[in-house]
Amino acid sequence: MQLIKGGVCAPKGFLAGACHCGIRKSQSKSDLAIIYSKKKAQTAAVYTTNQVKADCIYVTKEHLENHEAQAIICNSGNANACAPHGRENALREGAACAQTLGISSEDVIVASTGVIGQELPIQCIEEGVSQIQLQEDGSDVAAQAIMTTDTRSKDCAVRFEIDGIPCHIGGICKGSGMIHPNMGTMLAFITCDVAIDAQLLQKALLENTKKTFNRVSVDGDTSTNDMCVVMANGMARNKPITMEDEAYASFKEALKTVMENLAIQIAADGEGASRLLSVTVYEAETEEQAETLAKSICSSSLFKAAMFGSDANWGRVLCAMGYSGVDFELSKVDVSFASQFGKIQVCSQGRGLDFDEEMAKKILSADSIQVLVCLGQKDQVVTCWGCDLTYDYVKINGDYRT
Amino acid sequence: MQLIKGGVCAPKGFLAGACHCGIRKSQSKSDLAIIYSKKKAQTAAVYTTNQVKADCIYVTKEHLENHEAQAIICNSGNANACAPHGRENALREGAACAQTLGISSEDVIVASTGVIGQELPIQCIEEGVSQIQLQEDGSDVAAQAIMTTDTRSKDCAVRFEIDGIPCHIGGICKGSGMIHPNMGTMLAFITCDVAIDAQLLQKALLENTKKTFNRVSVDGDTSTNDMCVVMANGMARNKPITMEDEAYASFKEALKTVMENLAIQIAADGEGASRLLSVTVYEAETEEQAETLAKSICSSSLFKAAMFGSDANWGRVLCAMGYSGVDFELSKVDVSFASQFGKIQVCSQGRGLDFDEEMAKKILSADSIQVLVCLGQKDQVVTCWGCDLTYDYVKINGDYRT
Repeated sequence: MQLIKGGVCAPKGFLAGACHCGIRKSQSKSDLAIIYSKKKAQTAAVYTTNQVKADCIYVTKEHLENHEAQAIICNSGNANACAPHGRENALREGAACAQTLGISSEDVIVASTGVIGQELPIQCIEEGVSQIQLQEDGSDVAAQAIMTTDTRSKDCAVRFEIDGIPCHIGGICKGSGMIHPNMGTMLAFITCDVAIDAQLLQKALLENTKKTFNRVSVDGDTSTNDMCVVMANGMARNKPITMEDEAYASFKEALKTVMENLAIQIAADGEGASRLLSVTVYEAETEEQAETLAKSICSSSLFKAAMFGSDANWGRVLCAMGYSGVDFELSKVDVSFASQFGKIQVCSQGRGLDFDEEMAKKILSADSIQVLVCLGQKDQVVTCWGCDLTYDYVKINGDYRT
Repeated sequence: MQLIKGGVCAPKGFLAGACHCGIRKSQSKSDLAIIYSKKKAQTAAVYTTNQVKADCIYVTKEHLENHEAQAIICNSGNANACAPHGRENALREGAACAQTLGISSEDVIVASTGVIGQELPIQCIEEGVSQIQLQEDGSDVAAQAIMTTDTRSKDCAVRFEIDGIPCHIGGICKGSGMIHPNMGTMLAFITCDVAIDAQLLQKALLENTKKTFNRVSVDGDTSTNDMCVVMANGMARNKPITMEDEAYASFKEALKTVMENLAIQIAADGEGASRLLSVTVYEAETEEQAETLAKSICSSSLFKAAMFGSDANWGRVLCAMGYSGVDFELSKVDVSFASQFGKIQVCSQGRGLDFDEEMAKKILSADSIQVLVCLGQKDQVVTCWGCDLTYDYVKINGDYRT
């Protein structure tokens, strides 16, 4: 398996494009994207668990009842959630895309991201959709159009083989605020040219989601619009994957690579973030225990603020573990911090160590920091990702709508 | 019932005092407080639910097995949690207090607040404790000595009657960061001169805690050291309360008044807070439903940041309700914002209203803001309290230990 360029257009038969249709006032920021497959694709999706869901989520669920799709339309600048004429406008957005591509409305996935509660300017979309030029190198243009407070577009693609046949998986995603481990947590559109049964595609997506996107937290808020979709158009011409064999395992692993890569990009670009935090809990009794503890650390506002200040305040690591709701043996817990600048242990067997504060400060000044928590129990390991809590997070969210 | 001055010294027979013993470097900030009752008091307490507990919590629990105490010693500047010689030092802190007061160590409640993981400088405490002058007007001196990042000392006291006999309840508390609804959530020391059975005292404390301190959230982090204690020395000479009669009801209501007042002071002085948020969910089906929804709104970083920016981003209210885990009917939800500057409805039946943005901005510029969420179901009402998320929260917590 190797990382390649091209994002969602890396797999055979996928085109993408975008335009500024006018949902956003600024002409310089595109706001409408389409991803298109030349062949109808087996399609799987996971959605936000938020009880308040945008209307596009319901429409997409209906369209995917037959596990097939041929295009994704996604607008930024308006979430079409809790908004007047929400359902009608989500249906019209899908229909506009279908019409311009000459496909059926039922084969269109509809996604939106942006402010909640304002009516979607559907006419902008209906008029703008025909301006979109679909191109073989259109992935980044599409990735840019779905950004909200993201500071950079996010993509990833891999090439791998199934029975000697080259296959490709590519993805783009957006997500910066409202990021919390509970499915979805963002928009991610993944394409692949693999031939695979829809049920197996759904299974691989779901299991990988739990270990990738659901292990990212920016601020503990799960959005109303989150969606992760994977389309598989079969154009690689591999022998179709219809059981959980070696080919399935290879596919699932490649898919996980793309999803994990995208998930980490989301954590690193968390709203206002200055550092990526990777929290690894190891020597755990169970995977669930390790995951709950790692997520609790990643989600602690106090810990995240300490990381912003490069302050080795490991007491907040233990405190967050303590209120996570799962058991562990405090007297066996070791904590270390690491980065490109070195590694330092700060807590041994649940008690503070005398450590070199200068060295700790240096280690925690890096852009990417590892928090290593050893439970001293069994052999389970889980890593979760997050970011620090900064002035800019407050600034961005203190004035999001204006 | 009327509000009076005097804090923990308002009830008969209670004295308080404090000193700077040297845990904190700054001479100008006192760091050691004692509250003393002339008579041994029936005593009840609730503690942090964090699995990682400071050693003083364990020591206090042991000392309160007989439900009796005569003094509270509390230091700030060091939490004595996950710290070398933690248990030994907590015991020595209690013994030092007992010795200077000429009482038994088992009658001393030990509390600490401050940084986690550093060894408590117990010699400072042992040497400093004799400097403390206990006084009848010492409540505020004690309240100041237990502050950490609090910007103001917090107290409350009431006078009320039981069978025509004047009784008093007073309290001081501290709490600013690491505040989240899950017992404790801070240090609160409450005194009263009521004669009451220890079991009933515990019951009143526990039930009131659920509706007061546990409905406050600053940052979602539950501390290792939280404790709320109430001492009842019986010096008001009322007929002892031994059953859940009218006298008990009066007492419980007066105690709730003090606790709610202190809880709101904690929310208003949340780390870096510029505004107090009161979130009321009404016309709910059940109290649990209303409480879960109100807490979820109060705890949302995105919503808190919007309030900092006086941004009427009510979508974040619905979003936080949606991921709270409890059911409600979105199509029946109304949302309004209110303050001293007026009231404005922003959402009706789950959909956005066209509202006057200028007016909303003005309303949300107040120091105290009400968020009113009507579920349109039955008649349950719950209010929770929180504060906005500001640059100063990040600043305080980015550099807490230095």
